[in-house]
Amino acid sequence: MGASVVVLCGGVGAARFLEGVVRVVDPETVTAIVNVADDAEFHGLRVSPDIDTVLYTLAGLVDPDQGWGVRGDTHMVQSALARLGRDTWFQLGDADLATHIHRTALLREGVPLTEVTARLARSLGVRARILPSSDERQATMVRTDGGWLPFQEYFVHRRQQDTVREVRFDGAGKPTPGVIDAIDDARVVLVAPSNPIVSIGPILALAGVRAALARTPAPIVAISPIVGGEALKGPAAAMLESLGHEVSPVGVARLYADFLDVMVLDERDAALAPDVRAAGPRAVIAPTIMRDLAAKEQLARFAIDAAVAHAGA
Amino acid sequence: MGASVVVLCGGVGAARFLEGVVRVVDPETVTAIVNVADDAEFHGLRVSPDIDTVLYTLAGLVDPDQGWGVRGDTHMVQSALARLGRDTWFQLGDADLATHIHRTALLREGVPLTEVTARLARSLGVRARILPSSDERQATMVRTDGGWLPFQEYFVHRRQQDTVREVRFDGAGKPTPGVIDAIDDARVVLVAPSNPIVSIGPILALAGVRAALARTPAPIVAISPIVGGEALKGPAAAMLESLGHEVSPVGVARLYADFLDVMVLDERDAALAPDVRAAGPRAVIAPTIMRDLAAKEQLARFAIDAAVAHAGA
Repeated sequence: MGASVVVLCGGVGAARFLEGVVRVVDPETVTAIVNVADDAEFHGLRVSPDIDTVLYTLAGLVDPDQGWGVRGDTHMVQSALARLGRDTWFQLGDADLATHIHRTALLREGVPLTEVTARLARSLGVRARILPSSDERQATMVRTDGGWLPFQEYFVHRRQQDTVREVRFDGAGKPTPGVIDAIDDARVVLVAPSNPIVSIGPILALAGVRAALARTPAPIVAISPIVGGEALKGPAAAMLESLGHEVSPVGVARLYADFLDVMVLDERDAALAPDVRAAGPRAVIAPTIMRDLAAKEQLARFAIDAAVAHAGA
Repeated sequence: MGASVVVLCGGVGAARFLEGVVRVVDPETVTAIVNVADDAEFHGLRVSPDIDTVLYTLAGLVDPDQGWGVRGDTHMVQSALARLGRDTWFQLGDADLATHIHRTALLREGVPLTEVTARLARSLGVRARILPSSDERQATMVRTDGGWLPFQEYFVHRRQQDTVREVRFDGAGKPTPGVIDAIDDARVVLVAPSNPIVSIGPILALAGVRAALARTPAPIVAISPIVGGEALKGPAAAMLESLGHEVSPVGVARLYADFLDVMVLDERDAALAPDVRAAGPRAVIAPTIMRDLAAKEQLARFAIDAAVAHAGA
């Protein structure tokens, strides 16, 4: 493949998938468009969880057990913040905090998030282009039976215990400069196995993104984040269900129906292929569980091959 | 002694002296007015070196060898900041960074530095009242042969290697609310053995402070920071000399002549007593080197006794 593979990304699942993608194609030809609607401020510092998960993963720094944060990170600052009476329910390791301190300092100097992220990537030796979906603040809010909550309050503080009745994205009309061009000029667009509602959803909500996906000549392939009726990670299954979607690749295919060409389903969901097809995209079957690096690479290759095959069909 | 002992303070020397003061009188009756003109921003975080040195010392957390910073502090964040390409010549330990993160977050929320400092003191179990000299930004600038430098650039980054030709204080017209009242109502005012130019000088430069010191009925006693022609710590001796002052308790006495009642000289400088007297204040002789806690306590008691004696004279 030549330039360029564009990947729509949330956090952990996307980061693992990207690890495969950058081993299958030249990392310099990969553009990851990463959700920023999970971003939050803690202790006055701007935290961009999905961007950092992608950066740390591609830099080889990520904590492999959690899938996020820095491997072996310490929590000296957090302990001291707790002693000063600050709320520390959002876990922030020391190396991770350095990222947030640096990002916040640059943002306050007026450097846009896209440039901040590019500098972080360069410092960490990440060769893929990591594009925050927007330079503007976009904030996912979820309505639970107790009312509207900021995403991290629901996701981390309350450990996803609430039933999500509604989701909205505050702010961020525009995508980052470069997002629409990247989609327009892509050879392949991949939708990572991320939460379709709160990871991919906010990217799709930015002005012009759905239209660009619908019109791009590039084949668009999504990997289902739902396997055997369950999310690979996080609250996607419960969220799809409570919001009235089918908890399956079919439900996800319907959310992407206006632009998706191919949906990659796990072998366990092979029987759902006809229903996916009925929702719009072609369905292709592959092992989608990314247990190790080889599996990530295999899935990336499979998704890109499926795109190429679709384009050539 | 009843209420209240007011102490004008810089950093390390003042903090050590305060350790003695709070053992000699009820800490709740002690008000430390602490220089903020050394404050600086690093990585977008507001660092108040003198305030923190005083807080950490009175909280029993200070690094006893350095005289500043937190004992046993780690530098995980700083290493990660360096990896991200940030300048890390100003050493910031992890526990110390938590203080700056907390302070910066509160300041950005609009909490004045005085209230921020009171909260920090409470969290750290410090019972003396620690008043930043001003809620406004005041910045010491020093002119060297290479031009004007911000104080920490001269003091830390360039390790005081430059000859100081001139000193000015930018910003901060007004002292913190409470400073003038504290001086007006004091039983005793002590000037800690701090750099008279860049630690005590900026406090004296705030509107109304010198006038309040001149008119307060409280006896005012300073401990000479110069002993045997040398500064106990820091660049005070070189700075006095290059600015044309006598490098001795006499030179310091002249800088405080408009308000000082008593100057405490070290035994080694006993011969200078008549010259100090000629400059204005009475001169009293004591061991002023604070080698251990007993010596700090003894010096504090001596200074307070000298004040009481002066008031009764």
